[in-house]
Amino acid sequence: MTTAEIELPTSRAATLSTSTTMKALVYHGPDKRAWEEKPRPAIQDPGDAIVRITTSTICGTDLHILKGDLPAVTDGRILGHEGIGVVEQVGTGVSEFHVGDKVIISCVTACLKCDFCKRGMYSHCRHGGWILGYTIDGTQAEYVRIPQADGSLHNFPADGDEEAMVMLSDILPTGFECGVLNGQVKPGDTVAIVGAGPVGLAVLLTAQFYSPAAIFMIDLDDKRLAVAKKFGATTLINSADGNAAEQVMKLTEGAGVDVAIEAVGIPATFDICQTVVAAGGRIANVGVHGKPVELHLEKLWDRNISLTTRLVDTVTTPMLLKVVRSGKLQPSKLVSHRFATDDIMKAYDTFENAAKEGALKVVLLNGGPR
Amino acid sequence: MTTAEIELPTSRAATLSTSTTMKALVYHGPDKRAWEEKPRPAIQDPGDAIVRITTSTICGTDLHILKGDLPAVTDGRILGHEGIGVVEQVGTGVSEFHVGDKVIISCVTACLKCDFCKRGMYSHCRHGGWILGYTIDGTQAEYVRIPQADGSLHNFPADGDEEAMVMLSDILPTGFECGVLNGQVKPGDTVAIVGAGPVGLAVLLTAQFYSPAAIFMIDLDDKRLAVAKKFGATTLINSADGNAAEQVMKLTEGAGVDVAIEAVGIPATFDICQTVVAAGGRIANVGVHGKPVELHLEKLWDRNISLTTRLVDTVTTPMLLKVVRSGKLQPSKLVSHRFATDDIMKAYDTFENAAKEGALKVVLLNGGPR
Amino acid sequence: MTTAEIELPTSRAATLSTSTTMKALVYHGPDKRAWEEKPRPAIQDPGDAIVRITTSTICGTDLHILKGDLPAVTDGRILGHEGIGVVEQVGTGVSEFHVGDKVIISCVTACLKCDFCKRGMYSHCRHGGWILGYTIDGTQAEYVRIPQADGSLHNFPADGDEEAMVMLSDILPTGFECGVLNGQVKPGDTVAIVGAGPVGLAVLLTAQFYSPAAIFMIDLDDKRLAVAKKFGATTLINSADGNAAEQVMKLTEGAGVDVAIEAVGIPATFDICQTVVAAGGRIANVGVHGKPVELHLEKLWDRNISLTTRLVDTVTTPMLLKVVRSGKLQPSKLVSHRFATDDIMKAYDTFENAAKEGALKVVLLNGGPR
Amino acid sequence: MTTAEIELPTSRAATLSTSTTMKALVYHGPDKRAWEEKPRPAIQDPGDAIVRITTSTICGTDLHILKGDLPAVTDGRILGHEGIGVVEQVGTGVSEFHVGDKVIISCVTACLKCDFCKRGMYSHCRHGGWILGYTIDGTQAEYVRIPQADGSLHNFPADGDEEAMVMLSDILPTGFECGVLNGQVKPGDTVAIVGAGPVGLAVLLTAQFYSPAAIFMIDLDDKRLAVAKKFGATTLINSADGNAAEQVMKLTEGAGVDVAIEAVGIPATFDICQTVVAAGGRIANVGVHGKPVELHLEKLWDRNISLTTRLVDTVTTPMLLKVVRSGKLQPSKLVSHRFATDDIMKAYDTFENAAKEGALKVVLLNGGPR
Repeated sequence: MTTAEIELPTSRAATLSTSTTMKALVYHGPDKRAWEEKPRPAIQDPGDAIVRITTSTICGTDLHILKGDLPAVTDGRILGHEGIGVVEQVGTGVSEFHVGDKVIISCVTACLKCDFCKRGMYSHCRHGGWILGYTIDGTQAEYVRIPQADGSLHNFPADGDEEAMVMLSDILPTGFECGVLNGQVKPGDTVAIVGAGPVGLAVLLTAQFYSPAAIFMIDLDDKRLAVAKKFGATTLINSADGNAAEQVMKLTEGAGVDVAIEAVGIPATFDICQTVVAAGGRIANVGVHGKPVELHLEKLWDRNISLTTRLVDTVTTPMLLKVVRSGKLQPSKLVSHRFATDDIMKAYDTFENAAKEGALKVVLLNGGPR
Repeated sequence: MTTAEIELPTSRAATLSTSTTMKALVYHGPDKRAWEEKPRPAIQDPGDAIVRITTSTICGTDLHILKGDLPAVTDGRILGHEGIGVVEQVGTGVSEFHVGDKVIISCVTACLKCDFCKRGMYSHCRHGGWILGYTIDGTQAEYVRIPQADGSLHNFPADGDEEAMVMLSDILPTGFECGVLNGQVKPGDTVAIVGAGPVGLAVLLTAQFYSPAAIFMIDLDDKRLAVAKKFGATTLINSADGNAAEQVMKLTEGAGVDVAIEAVGIPATFDICQTVVAAGGRIANVGVHGKPVELHLEKLWDRNISLTTRLVDTVTTPMLLKVVRSGKLQPSKLVSHRFATDDIMKAYDTFENAAKEGALKVVLLNGGPR
Repeated sequence: MTTAEIELPTSRAATLSTSTTMKALVYHGPDKRAWEEKPRPAIQDPGDAIVRITTSTICGTDLHILKGDLPAVTDGRILGHEGIGVVEQVGTGVSEFHVGDKVIISCVTACLKCDFCKRGMYSHCRHGGWILGYTIDGTQAEYVRIPQADGSLHNFPADGDEEAMVMLSDILPTGFECGVLNGQVKPGDTVAIVGAGPVGLAVLLTAQFYSPAAIFMIDLDDKRLAVAKKFGATTLINSADGNAAEQVMKLTEGAGVDVAIEAVGIPATFDICQTVVAAGGRIANVGVHGKPVELHLEKLWDRNISLTTRLVDTVTTPMLLKVVRSGKLQPSKLVSHRFATDDIMKAYDTFENAAKEGALKVVLLNGGPR
Repeated sequence: MTTAEIELPTSRAATLSTSTTMKALVYHGPDKRAWEEKPRPAIQDPGDAIVRITTSTICGTDLHILKGDLPAVTDGRILGHEGIGVVEQVGTGVSEFHVGDKVIISCVTACLKCDFCKRGMYSHCRHGGWILGYTIDGTQAEYVRIPQADGSLHNFPADGDEEAMVMLSDILPTGFECGVLNGQVKPGDTVAIVGAGPVGLAVLLTAQFYSPAAIFMIDLDDKRLAVAKKFGATTLINSADGNAAEQVMKLTEGAGVDVAIEAVGIPATFDICQTVVAAGGRIANVGVHGKPVELHLEKLWDRNISLTTRLVDTVTTPMLLKVVRSGKLQPSKLVSHRFATDDIMKAYDTFENAAKEGALKVVLLNGGPR
């Protein structure tokens, strides 16, 4: 303790184990990842917290990084931006969390003080935003340093389930904010969700908070569509034959849908959305796009539609937490596979073959599956 | 009167002049228009009103029709969807207007009863929408038949000025609803308006209802920009050199604008909007587009922006009327030229050479300029 | 038909039975009601429709009238403002409904044309509002005249159930608009509903459209509370001992509730609402009040609360219809008793003794219970 | 400096003058105030800043304190919650402000981290809210300690005027948030403001951001009404004869106003508001109330009104700052008197006799009036 105090003058230290290293999932350039020894993180700024990870998970974005699509991620970076853990150490500027607190880690880091944070746009925080497992080391490790901890952690509820709660790190607020809130889903609405991957399913689960009358789920994969059916989709549309939009228009008697939610990120799926949106409707983009799309303003200019984009702000995490605790939402439904954290390399193998493996969210449990 | 009652069992007839013909501006295919004799309109449905036009004006859309861009307009159609006049006759289903009432004619016809009208989307009325001077005969004539009169007329205020009020037929609600309301202009905002033609200027005038801090006006024509300056633009940007977007970004220190309003209708001007919109900002499309645009979702997906389209609903006309009456808005500023209705052919010549003539709105006055 | 055309020049007549009288529930001053012979209604205005009633129901307001609380109701008035029926005749100004259409009658009559209707405030329609069974004859009869039919009727869905749909005449839109929408119920909210009578239960059912985390139901009657439990209340509070507010504060750890909904109409229940509303919360008044209340502005001025009042506008009936059709809401749950219309005197007896009889909504079926 | 560093390990100290005392306006129980020597404040928490005051002002609330109305204020308290100054010292947790920064002090202290702050309700911050010059020492002094500095200060703009900017500490956000925003003032609205004191005038100035058609100003004092006229009120009503409500109803032809704003805080003025609010209108309470009011729910239950209360959150200060900088608002209009800070006792005398002195805001300038 004495040593820690000397070394870490800006933190209130906890009883740390004497080891100074840890295991972590490290990116070493395109297609190269390793579960290897790394130094344990330390407090660098008064707002930091060190969290010991108990549960984490893998995101589709982690696969994008591994393909080399995000050049900002450099060799040696620890991946992961989702997780549950226990606070081990806090900087002197941290006031809302204490050593020993069990916490949900938000994928977005928020200083709360900048103009964007004050407007609720944590995604564009001038001192944070999405940085975890991207420009700083992430959560697929035994320990992680969380900057701006007061804006980036949430108290884990006493009655919580780690598998369920880790869905609050990213996928549920992403589906809810970018898809459902931006799409302004209302009671009685007809909603089309294009893409039944994990994030599309998160949209599906959270859209039901607002009691839409019909939810059309559109995907190429019948297995995923079958899951969507169990999760509350009212109509399944396999888009393999290229006439998904036509089917939607037929089902809506030519009117189109009130809300079309893009949860894939390619021109073809965006195109379905702009074709099926009703006059007065909303297109909410959730997918991460790598290319421009052709927007048919010559057809849409007089259709009174809105189109939104959004990087998740995680401002609704407290609301989602309340809904999960009330039992109205079971996010653990999204978990298809469980691995011990030490088996993370196998977990990645599974997630990389999601279609074949029927994988949705793959959860990594410290100490292995329970 | 007796005869009229027999002939027009669905209307309460007024004392009509005995003539059964009138003069009207008639479309005869691309580039062909004539000011010629036509039969006077008669009540066809219980909801109709016949209005004697006292003031009308020409819209950019009328020029589009004359170019042959709107094939739904057929040979023999009387043009015009804007006007002030006096009610001469009403159908038995008309309850809000009476013979002798002076009225503002809305460019959009609204039954008020269909699902779209009930949602305030008169533009998509199942029995109306934009039909005047498009699929039915319009207002550039001595008389016009207004279907769904109760939803398509507004009482002319006792203290009103016809030149000012005729701007409420189309251009002011268009600029306000499609640009300002959809763009959610707020006090303190920075707004860019691309296009300083009449509709862009209508956006400029009505944007000031919400006290934005800065309004950048972007156009190729310095004369129009000079008008914009007089109308309240805080910064003028001539886009002729192709670096308007760059200038906006420099002026905003790289942040971009809160609201970018497209008031032209071509890919190049849309592109300025998507380049200059700030994270968290809104793009409001007002322009009529004939081609698709390339939407840079690969840059915008994580920028938390919204993009809206809209055909004017004219639901805000009562609000605009109150603001005009209060003196906070002088729409007659938009009038650059005045002609007697009989000189409408010359008025079209002038409006067709708007740049050269410095024409904004060209007003047609029954009995000539006063 | 010929005769009808002569007699009813403003209507398109259907084949009417030759009888010119009907049975109706008639108010004859305080505490006096009779099921007696009355002349059948006839078209009076072009916007009228004559509807043959197939199902109706009794409202708490009907009991108020019978107590003499609403002096605007005069001797001889046919009561009732809820019902399902079939259109028998329409005026020439009616465009959306036709003879033979099965319809839901809205308790509020809307011209759709006045300033209030255009703003969606049908309750204050200058030519309608609540008039049915109040200032004009109502629906507890074999036939009823519906003025402004295009704004006051809704198409009965092909797959609809009359018992369920009659709840859309008044009680569901009342609970939803005045309670849930005005209270801005959001996912995760804690809601207190004071009053578990039919309208309070309608609030309870429709509040669940927005997935609140907790709904406290407060009433004096354990039987009603037991019903509330079945309908989705998460916590029941019997207010008989006068410490309901205290219990709510304890359950919320002193914070109070996000939304407090008053569904009774007396000072004591309003007082519970103002005591339990959290800082930043909303009080939505649904109850009909006969006396002023004491508003504790000395405690509330700095609590950032809102308080709303509303007479139902029925603007959400189309939305509610969609939700009912989707199966997310079973309004027939609200029906506790069924009577043949001929037994309406007994139905009133039952409804007047609601507590003893366990009565919620008492439905009157033409031809008797099925 | 060495000493300071030892004593203040949580701060980055600036070069302080060697004196350890300062002058301050101190409350010594009802009706007792003194401009006396006090110890200079020091950093107590990592989030603190010490600000040297250059301009401050007196609020009506300070007079309430001096009357003994706020018993939470204890003997020895330095008053004042408004001010402009220069940062002299910051705690280690302060990241947005630095020694030497010129700042606007917000009357509300916001931690930004608690649930209320995250919802934008700084007024109810769990670690702040209104505490300055209330439960901790305030700004009517040479120096002040500002806790939670990152949430409670704003950068003073380079081109700013101190007299104008000090109105952003309290009075402008109070008028704007509690009156204008809560009252949802819209273009074309008719607004009644009851009370033409400084806060009512702040409502008047900021209401004009939204271009209402008419603003009725109601007060007992013709001098204040004359000021209101200059500030943009369209109609003045002296309420001395007790028939202000009657006049408003007459002026609005019986309709009442869209927005009624209470800016006094007594039952009689609240009563005017509830009498004149139109169906569908809003009552926004700004006044600080000491007693309950009688709310006429028996008249209002079916009028579709809303009533709001609010303690200023100061969340709109950045927006207001933009509007002030744009020149659309001249808050220095509110300044009627200027005193040197050393003459604060005289300044209080003047402000205490506001009616006689024609005092609005009384500004205290370090070094005296310029």
